[in-house]
Amino acid sequence: MSNTLAIGIDVGGTNTKFGIVNKQGQILMQDRIKTNERENAEGFIEVLAEKLLPMIEQNGGVENFIGIGMGAPNANYYKGTIEYAANLKWKGVIPMAELIEKRFGLPVKMTNDANAAAVGEQMYGVAKGLKHFITITLGTGVGAGVIIDGKIVVGHNGFAGELGHIVVRHGGRLHKNTGIRGSLESYASATGLRDTAIEFLQRDHDRPSLLRDYTINELTSETVFNCAEQGDSLSNEIFEYTGQILGEALATFVHFSAPEAIVLFGGLTKAGNLLMKPTRQAMEDNLLEVFKNQVKILYSDLKEADAAILGASALVW
Amino acid sequence: MSNTLAIGIDVGGTNTKFGIVNKQGQILMQDRIKTNERENAEGFIEVLAEKLLPMIEQNGGVENFIGIGMGAPNANYYKGTIEYAANLKWKGVIPMAELIEKRFGLPVKMTNDANAAAVGEQMYGVAKGLKHFITITLGTGVGAGVIIDGKIVVGHNGFAGELGHIVVRHGGRLHKNTGIRGSLESYASATGLRDTAIEFLQRDHDRPSLLRDYTINELTSETVFNCAEQGDSLSNEIFEYTGQILGEALATFVHFSAPEAIVLFGGLTKAGNLLMKPTRQAMEDNLLEVFKNQVKILYSDLKEADAAILGASALVW
Repeated sequence: MSNTLAIGIDVGGTNTKFGIVNKQGQILMQDRIKTNERENAEGFIEVLAEKLLPMIEQNGGVENFIGIGMGAPNANYYKGTIEYAANLKWKGVIPMAELIEKRFGLPVKMTNDANAAAVGEQMYGVAKGLKHFITITLGTGVGAGVIIDGKIVVGHNGFAGELGHIVVRHGGRLHKNTGIRGSLESYASATGLRDTAIEFLQRDHDRPSLLRDYTINELTSETVFNCAEQGDSLSNEIFEYTGQILGEALATFVHFSAPEAIVLFGGLTKAGNLLMKPTRQAMEDNLLEVFKNQVKILYSDLKEADAAILGASALVW
Repeated sequence: MSNTLAIGIDVGGTNTKFGIVNKQGQILMQDRIKTNERENAEGFIEVLAEKLLPMIEQNGGVENFIGIGMGAPNANYYKGTIEYAANLKWKGVIPMAELIEKRFGLPVKMTNDANAAAVGEQMYGVAKGLKHFITITLGTGVGAGVIIDGKIVVGHNGFAGELGHIVVRHGGRLHKNTGIRGSLESYASATGLRDTAIEFLQRDHDRPSLLRDYTINELTSETVFNCAEQGDSLSNEIFEYTGQILGEALATFVHFSAPEAIVLFGGLTKAGNLLMKPTRQAMEDNLLEVFKNQVKILYSDLKEADAAILGASALVW
């Protein structure tokens, strides 16, 4: 029975989810805390320990565990640090893996949350058995994890796979957190789609649209989705525009690493074909002959909360 | 003495260069033939055999060789085929590795020419000892080879690393061979720089420029370089524009695989700082904090003809 369980911890901008996972990918127990409840990382670890230590005890104690896997924004795979994470309260470089290791007495592997999700898809999700694929999270931001030859790509400094930050429109929208103009995340995230909606409503100010029944504060990617479903043409164009940009970016990724599949997850995927039809079209239009009609676009079938915990835990096996 | 030599063959659009290489990376003998002298691949192999077989004999016969490495456009690493190469006479899918293997009685490894060059840089060039780097050829076209964890990235279908074909300007210049609009190769190749020159001369038709002393046929990337060196402001702007696009693309590559260096070679690199200053600036401007001032831009120090042969031969070790 020894070393048969892993702990997965997913540090998000709002919540940190964690769970006890067996090798078959079953989450035996899980819970969550607010990531920013305390001011500093030490405080965070205390809040975490209050909930996680009893869970470890209920599952046979540390000797029953092989280790802790963590997914976190701006995580450095090699150093086990979280560095300058724009969405977290903790400033500078946090030696998170070391702190967790000390507190729980278990070895820690950490990578960025999107990389962890890719590993989860590979072990337990739609990418099971695939050697070359890329996962893209289309959520509040755009995250990505790249798998080549069955291994996650972390690169020289441990930060590879930051695909949400590539420039897709020269001189385009300013991304406030990064200072980069025209990056994928500025367009193909839930936030980006909302910004496109506001932009289009202002640009075509004479054009009727169901979107005009909402205040700016009420406008979200869901609102745009609902209006598009009701046949609103401006809302449809917002998805086409977003899909065009996303599809071009996917073509770039295909030219780089020649994956057999791209796995999408996150809130925006709920728009289904409204987003995917223009995305696939734009991707195919911008591919070399040798790549055309070869790359599968798949949706993750893991529940979102589960995927994060599973992915993080999968790092330790 | 057995198995101490390799053969490197670089199939180019015009010339095919080949040589006998020892493990220290010394080219003991070399020669070249016209790639398209004969109509089909079988004819090509006969012309090659006439020159290469005597070289093999002079170096102790096949038992002295470990194998043949080939770099070729549109080469499929897994299948050993050359597929739909736009710049070669041979149409369709050519089982080149198999044909060469049969004719010379030696095992053959083949990948695209830019990947082969990357392997050459890794074994014998400025990238010696580096585990994560990307080579970019800025020649008639833009080729690339990606090395991650010390291994060349070929991806699921064997065609990874086609970085010259990523879209850098949405709706931009049409690339005739690929049908893709606004791809890197349309701007950051010798041909692309020339097209920019023609475009700028037409757009700013009232503006004086030394470039106006040349006919359109005389205009080349070298002409633009020479005029820029003489202080011609339009020519300088052409390099700045090209560097801006190239630098943005380099930032995309860095976000993808987090290399420690990018190795440049090919004709355009002769422009030195005229191109490199704006390129580096644009790259840095478009990088996330964790990548800024970390990625070296290096120039290949291998002679161009040698690099191609060395790179191809290095595939077999």
